[in-house]
Amino acid sequence: MTTDKELFVSAPGKVILHGEHAVVYGKVALAVSLNLRTYLRIRPCSNNTVQVNLPNIGAKLSWDISELQTLLPHFQANLTQEPTSPTPDHLAILKKFAGFAEGSIDTQSLAVLAFLYLYLSICGKDLPSLDMTVWSQLPTGAGLGSSAAYSVTVATALLTFCSRISDPRKEKAEMLRWMKDELDLINRWAFQGEKVIHGNPSGVDNAVATWGGLLRYQSGQITPLERVSKLQIVLTNTQVPRSTKILVAGVKDKLHKFPSILEPVLSSINAIAEECQRVLEDLVAGIPGDHYSVLEELIDINQHHLNVIGVGHPSLDKVCQVTASHGLHSKLTGSGGGGCAITLLRPDVNPSTVQEAKEKLTDCGFQCWETIIGAPGVLAHSSCSMAEDIMKFF
Amino acid sequence: MTTDKELFVSAPGKVILHGEHAVVYGKVALAVSLNLRTYLRIRPCSNNTVQVNLPNIGAKLSWDISELQTLLPHFQANLTQEPTSPTPDHLAILKKFAGFAEGSIDTQSLAVLAFLYLYLSICGKDLPSLDMTVWSQLPTGAGLGSSAAYSVTVATALLTFCSRISDPRKEKAEMLRWMKDELDLINRWAFQGEKVIHGNPSGVDNAVATWGGLLRYQSGQITPLERVSKLQIVLTNTQVPRSTKILVAGVKDKLHKFPSILEPVLSSINAIAEECQRVLEDLVAGIPGDHYSVLEELIDINQHHLNVIGVGHPSLDKVCQVTASHGLHSKLTGSGGGGCAITLLRPDVNPSTVQEAKEKLTDCGFQCWETIIGAPGVLAHSSCSMAEDIMKFF
Repeated sequence: MTTDKELFVSAPGKVILHGEHAVVYGKVALAVSLNLRTYLRIRPCSNNTVQVNLPNIGAKLSWDISELQTLLPHFQANLTQEPTSPTPDHLAILKKFAGFAEGSIDTQSLAVLAFLYLYLSICGKDLPSLDMTVWSQLPTGAGLGSSAAYSVTVATALLTFCSRISDPRKEKAEMLRWMKDELDLINRWAFQGEKVIHGNPSGVDNAVATWGGLLRYQSGQITPLERVSKLQIVLTNTQVPRSTKILVAGVKDKLHKFPSILEPVLSSINAIAEECQRVLEDLVAGIPGDHYSVLEELIDINQHHLNVIGVGHPSLDKVCQVTASHGLHSKLTGSGGGGCAITLLRPDVNPSTVQEAKEKLTDCGFQCWETIIGAPGVLAHSSCSMAEDIMKFF
Repeated sequence: MTTDKELFVSAPGKVILHGEHAVVYGKVALAVSLNLRTYLRIRPCSNNTVQVNLPNIGAKLSWDISELQTLLPHFQANLTQEPTSPTPDHLAILKKFAGFAEGSIDTQSLAVLAFLYLYLSICGKDLPSLDMTVWSQLPTGAGLGSSAAYSVTVATALLTFCSRISDPRKEKAEMLRWMKDELDLINRWAFQGEKVIHGNPSGVDNAVATWGGLLRYQSGQITPLERVSKLQIVLTNTQVPRSTKILVAGVKDKLHKFPSILEPVLSSINAIAEECQRVLEDLVAGIPGDHYSVLEELIDINQHHLNVIGVGHPSLDKVCQVTASHGLHSKLTGSGGGGCAITLLRPDVNPSTVQEAKEKLTDCGFQCWETIIGAPGVLAHSSCSMAEDIMKFF
């Protein structure tokens, strides 16, 4: 049932390229994978324990298989069935088992609960002894889908470890993927993990972490786009804390106050998402055109629109201003009011320009990453193919 | 026929409050009078000459009545008729008379030609000897309707001087106005002066200078709004030169490139103008509400939209940024790409806040005026009611 060597799995984060907030009103949002990844190592263990190590959040836990076995009657029995959703009862049982207070909603507790839920639901009657370490390049709570990347890597590792899906290491390649129907199963299980963590997630984040690339999201419908161009970006975390709930409510109030002024703005945002999708498809299809200039224009227009609907912030204005002074184009991503911004880099951008912009952004107290959007979704890695700067965390 | 004492007349400039550029696509624009005024003094003269003095543009001219008389057959004969439009023949005759080259389009030549056209057309067969000085608080070529204010004061002075409309000095008041049908005649003659200067003017500027207050302009239709609240503003001239023609063409190109993205923005601008009109009507009607906050929001939203349609400029961003740092809200006015911006002042604004903001704007190399929009249109003044700082120019 279990593999006898360690398996590495990684999944990307996500950013909203266009359509944040407008998506609440039935408009198209484009969610795209962010190549800041969450890495997971899983390996068999011989001491009849399950060990979970989450170095980013300082959690290191261990349980005896025999204790875990006592919980089994409450969890997934028939492995051929559709993944089951966590109920309040499930969560209460797991919280009690892990020794968490009833109302615990801290990152550490939620991550552990999601692991336990997936472990008990996926691994079936004969619970395996294993050792799992998850380390992430993604900051948590920044709207970058870190919990979904976590859920996807955990679900993937457990499904592979328990042979519920194939082990792609049997192929000879550096980065290995699963088949479409296996990815679909990963995605549906990861969604259950997201439910443990978020209650009522949209499913977009786990879909992006699973499939990678670009996803269209509209009125609850998620459509992964098969072929999409990767784009270089700088991701900037202003580290200004914000409440998505309050920001969403603010947009609603403004829309209620000025419907005839704001409804057209939402339509325009929808058209930006549609146009962006078209350009990315043209780019990957090799259709000639000044695609990057269009992408830059769309970013600028949407950033103005997001300010209009009231989700801007002086820190985000600062990001736009600093990058604009280097000829680069930025917009907020996600809920706004602080949080993160993305800056598009053309393929022919001068590296020293990017370096200077990043330094200035860092001087403003922001965190910056030069990375890629549209990168692959969940991947398996052989240990020898893992980069040293990542391996040191394992 | 002529009055025997000097008459002072003044007319305001104009700014576009909302709807610039969108008006080209059939949307509503709100034009509002700007209380930077053009002042004119007219008085009879006994030496059979007509003297025109335009100190702002360094023009001082004089013609013998007998020479002017030779031009009369070409101009308005029947004074009961509708004002006649200047033809290319008229302009050629006047240019030759004044000694201007065929293609002269400098401010000085155009102002003189407009005067001559109005003088010959309005004053009829018995041309009066007179002395006229026009001085303005308005910068020229800044999109503030300085030529219309000039045309309105000249038309008003000549119509009053020649008794074609009543002399409001017969009333005992400091600031005197004409009756509605007289204002209508002033406006129609001023429009002819504008045609001499601009070729194909919209008629908005002369209407604002005549009627004052607020005008709705849509698809060639001008609707003066009877009752409107005055608003305190800071007018800032970035002094960045721009071409309205190029800016208008740029908007057209962008609209052609991204119709589904930009058409909603024009709709939103239209809704902003409608909402602004409603708020100004509520304000003057004394309907309670946080009207100034709404006006500020509308300014911010429209400024973003104007950036979206591509008529922003770093100098205008600077105005917005400087004033925002003092809690004040600004937008470009007119064609953008430089030019002027307006900053709304609430009635309860702290004067030192305004002072500081104005100083910072001046430090940026901009020109600032603290003034009023929605002020009266053309007025007659008795010499004793004229402010000293204006009288010194006469």
